[in-house]
Amino acid sequence: MPERGLLLVVSGPSGAGKGTVLKSLFTKREGLFSSVSATTRLPRPGEVHGESYYFLSKDLFRQEIKDGNMLEYAGYCDNYYGTPRGPVEEKRNQGYDVVLEIEVQGAMKVRHSCEDATLIFIMPPSVAELEKRLRKRGTEKEEVVQRRLETSKAEVHTASAYDYIVLNDEVNRAAHDIDCIITAEKLKPGNCPKIFIE
Amino acid sequence: MPERGLLLVVSGPSGAGKGTVLKSLFTKREGLFSSVSATTRLPRPGEVHGESYYFLSKDLFRQEIKDGNMLEYAGYCDNYYGTPRGPVEEKRNQGYDVVLEIEVQGAMKVRHSCEDATLIFIMPPSVAELEKRLRKRGTEKEEVVQRRLETSKAEVHTASAYDYIVLNDEVNRAAHDIDCIITAEKLKPGNCPKIFIE
Repeated sequence: MPERGLLLVVSGPSGAGKGTVLKSLFTKREGLFSSVSATTRLPRPGEVHGESYYFLSKDLFRQEIKDGNMLEYAGYCDNYYGTPRGPVEEKRNQGYDVVLEIEVQGAMKVRHSCEDATLIFIMPPSVAELEKRLRKRGTEKEEVVQRRLETSKAEVHTASAYDYIVLNDEVNRAAHDIDCIITAEKLKPGNCPKIFIE
Repeated sequence: MPERGLLLVVSGPSGAGKGTVLKSLFTKREGLFSSVSATTRLPRPGEVHGESYYFLSKDLFRQEIKDGNMLEYAGYCDNYYGTPRGPVEEKRNQGYDVVLEIEVQGAMKVRHSCEDATLIFIMPPSVAELEKRLRKRGTEKEEVVQRRLETSKAEVHTASAYDYIVLNDEVNRAAHDIDCIITAEKLKPGNCPKIFIE
């Protein structure tokens, strides 16, 4: 049986650069698997069940919540979005380290639903840079940008509830930091049973 | 003020290769400082106080124990050997990561005397390899080798009390593992206060 993989929850405020850092991490390290979310919204053209999302009916999604099968979930625009526990467990038991890129509120929920999850907070380098990145995203009104910025600034204060804080001032270094975190976590006694000699 | 450094306690059974791994680590990473032990034995020619050892009188050593100024200590051949707390704290406050290479019993004492120490166990790759290394050391009698081997095998069972277990099957990889542990430990919220943006 392979060694059980980790569950890495990578989170942080909107504009912190979670996606970019993870993209770099995936080029550095093997054995990682991106968690697939579940949703009740309808598939868009080209989206594949089990790859883009698990597409569930609202009744089934509610049943999965009731049965404790969602590591976290939230409602958004009249639909549910969440992380099903089953596929995460399956991949971990196969030896993969499962990576869950997720908003701050979801990460805090995983803290409670999965005791051995490793929580990593991606910290933007400065408020100015955060603002720049939020503006770059599109043509949102100033009001929307300001509201998002306030939310992101508030979310920075949740960082101390995470296991690790990674500063994203330089994408490759930030990815290297996460690479080290994974290596180190695998060296904890609970995670390396087969290292013992006889 | 610089960020406070870590205290890394690197331990493991005799023959695990602690010294060799640390030598490799010191070539990979800056900002490390090797802790200097205190002893009551007399200096040998060429040994310098504060570099080879802190040479203390027995009275002074006993007073330091009484005052709680020893992170750990032990008696050996009618002399005391130990780790003075003061210089370790001083170097950590200057931002150095202090490395303490120490026997298993001493490491367990540091667990209690220094709450934020990071304990790393160096695991030999196999009993056969351990035996080979213990034999290589010199011309000890078979009886001595066997006794040491039994002690080392018993000490392997303390590994789960450490924060991390590093398998020394390949020196460079083992040193890389410790390098990652240090990087990861510095990303814990308590160790990276200056990472927070405002």
